[in-house]
Amino acid sequence: MKRREILKGAAGVATVGAATVAEMAAAQQAPAAAMERIDVTMVSTWPRDFPGLGTGAQRFARRLSDMSDGRIAVQYFAGGERVKAFDSFDEVASGNAQMYHGADYYWKGKHPGWAYFTAVPFGLTYTEMNAWIRFGGGQELWDELGEGFGLKGLMCGNTGVQMGGWFRKEMNAADDFNGLKMRIPGLGGDVLAKLGASPVSLPGSQIYENLVSGAIDATEWVGPWNDSVMKFYEAAKYYYYPGMHEPGSMLAVGVNKDFWEGLSRADQTTIEAAASMENDVMMSEYNAKNGEWLAKLVAEQGVQLERFNDDIYDSFGEAAAEVFAEVVEHSDLARRIHESFTKARADVGAWAKISDQEYVRQRNRVLGL
Amino acid sequence: MKRREILKGAAGVATVGAATVAEMAAAQQAPAAAMERIDVTMVSTWPRDFPGLGTGAQRFARRLSDMSDGRIAVQYFAGGERVKAFDSFDEVASGNAQMYHGADYYWKGKHPGWAYFTAVPFGLTYTEMNAWIRFGGGQELWDELGEGFGLKGLMCGNTGVQMGGWFRKEMNAADDFNGLKMRIPGLGGDVLAKLGASPVSLPGSQIYENLVSGAIDATEWVGPWNDSVMKFYEAAKYYYYPGMHEPGSMLAVGVNKDFWEGLSRADQTTIEAAASMENDVMMSEYNAKNGEWLAKLVAEQGVQLERFNDDIYDSFGEAAAEVFAEVVEHSDLARRIHESFTKARADVGAWAKISDQEYVRQRNRVLGL
Repeated sequence: MKRREILKGAAGVATVGAATVAEMAAAQQAPAAAMERIDVTMVSTWPRDFPGLGTGAQRFARRLSDMSDGRIAVQYFAGGERVKAFDSFDEVASGNAQMYHGADYYWKGKHPGWAYFTAVPFGLTYTEMNAWIRFGGGQELWDELGEGFGLKGLMCGNTGVQMGGWFRKEMNAADDFNGLKMRIPGLGGDVLAKLGASPVSLPGSQIYENLVSGAIDATEWVGPWNDSVMKFYEAAKYYYYPGMHEPGSMLAVGVNKDFWEGLSRADQTTIEAAASMENDVMMSEYNAKNGEWLAKLVAEQGVQLERFNDDIYDSFGEAAAEVFAEVVEHSDLARRIHESFTKARADVGAWAKISDQEYVRQRNRVLGL
Repeated sequence: MKRREILKGAAGVATVGAATVAEMAAAQQAPAAAMERIDVTMVSTWPRDFPGLGTGAQRFARRLSDMSDGRIAVQYFAGGERVKAFDSFDEVASGNAQMYHGADYYWKGKHPGWAYFTAVPFGLTYTEMNAWIRFGGGQELWDELGEGFGLKGLMCGNTGVQMGGWFRKEMNAADDFNGLKMRIPGLGGDVLAKLGASPVSLPGSQIYENLVSGAIDATEWVGPWNDSVMKFYEAAKYYYYPGMHEPGSMLAVGVNKDFWEGLSRADQTTIEAAASMENDVMMSEYNAKNGEWLAKLVAEQGVQLERFNDDIYDSFGEAAAEVFAEVVEHSDLARRIHESFTKARADVGAWAKISDQEYVRQRNRVLGL
């Protein structure tokens, strides 16, 4: 492993003060050793140029190539261009492609643990998720889960807190969900089913027609920026906040594990940094644009912005507890992921309560924001 | 500019589907063109190994070297090792060093605009700051400000919302600040001066002795993780939240502008990504550790955790408005920075109110967190 040794010498230069002469020499040789071109086929679960999710994945691919002077050469395929969106997992796990960009909760049928690495009901916000993944044991559990499928996951984007959804009527009590046909996938749908709703899974392209025809009564999607282009307001005027089902949906780059382990430390850290930057750039874009688009929806489309009340949230909470009791029965790993996640929610959440939470409340109150 | 052209060709590969044969050839040549070793002398405003701020700066330096296989060779000097902490700005502006890591509000004596690129009273939280810098015009104004001093700034860390400080007595009304000698630097100190306090600026190493001797009545520092090691609780038991003065202090890498402009696009994007990753890693570490250390302070040191009440916050708000009215008088650029910042606070803050804010409130209420 001559190359690894050279890298070790090179890395030493950065840490402190003066490097030894031997280290300097090693550092000067290092670049020559790392010059192989690396071809990456990257598939994704998003339509080409889909705002936020798709454009973010594309921006990540471009950045990775920019950072490496084109040496890490990424060929990006949007959903359907090489394989269907939901075949991205198998395409990368099998080694046919080296990376996917997607939402890992799409794979919860393979293992319920995957849901925790995108979003679960009553779960973590963006900053809490980052703290859990980086310093609360989250990445280690994600690695253990991925190991079983030949994958390595990296954080690469976030939508932030999603809206509760579009409804044709006011939702004043938990009972209003009884009998409601709503497009809401995943564990969020399981929670609403406990309240007597009929959750439906529909791809984005089919929601509008089903809502207009009355085949469904309500739908959630993402937030004001993404929802605006879907024109749901034509069929459902009540727009509820906040969603309990996806409080900070993390997007992921899934990397084929054999490919990952064959990379030099330099290439691994380059990919990590590119993904990490996109994690925050995408979140920043959603935060910057959601407010602006929400104002337009209210002013130009007559959308009624409404808040889920405490009664409804209490019922969401009881239903979510039942759903999680079932999830942890799946396996030891599912239970350990759940426990690590809920510990982070308690610890980081307690800090959030007296820091960001109380600060923003006071600031906005004083300034009338 | 042959090299730039090659880079352009290489970057094209990443964007979409199949690259042309010409582009592929260009990409394969690109690495050879980017092989010069780049030596970076980096100074900082933090003591060596200072938890969070110092260790984060060191981690950034190491990551940059790791990512480039040691080709971008960073020699890191903590505060005082090459120049004094507060001489970091001049050291980099003059070109004696290529980068500093620090808090840009240290340079507000050179131009009050710098304060906005760390934190100002009633300012932005971490996610709001990122949205402003990346998508709200913040980076462009930061670049314009830096231009005048020969610097280019990059986000590289954040402490999150800071605590309001350590007090020897309960603070029940704005009047309790009248006559109070408190260690609180910057615009936060200016706000308290409007309430009749005597703000004092002291380096970290001198705060404890001044608090114990009674030379000062109160002090703020950062948050539970950093404050714990300072042992302020031995002299002041009341620990107030949330601070109005630093709601998300962004740390920066300041790069000498001529050096920056001489770099290839690949090296610029590599440095950007390394800094961006540290921006979030540091924030995650503070969020993960503050909750844990706060619990210890309360359980083991008998610290009284207290909340600033509405009356006090109202007075903070009035005083802050007076301070800002003075700041914007400085120059056209100061006014434009202030206006861009306050627009982001209104727009992104309105979205935060119905997303993160209301979600965390409901979640924590339902779960009893």
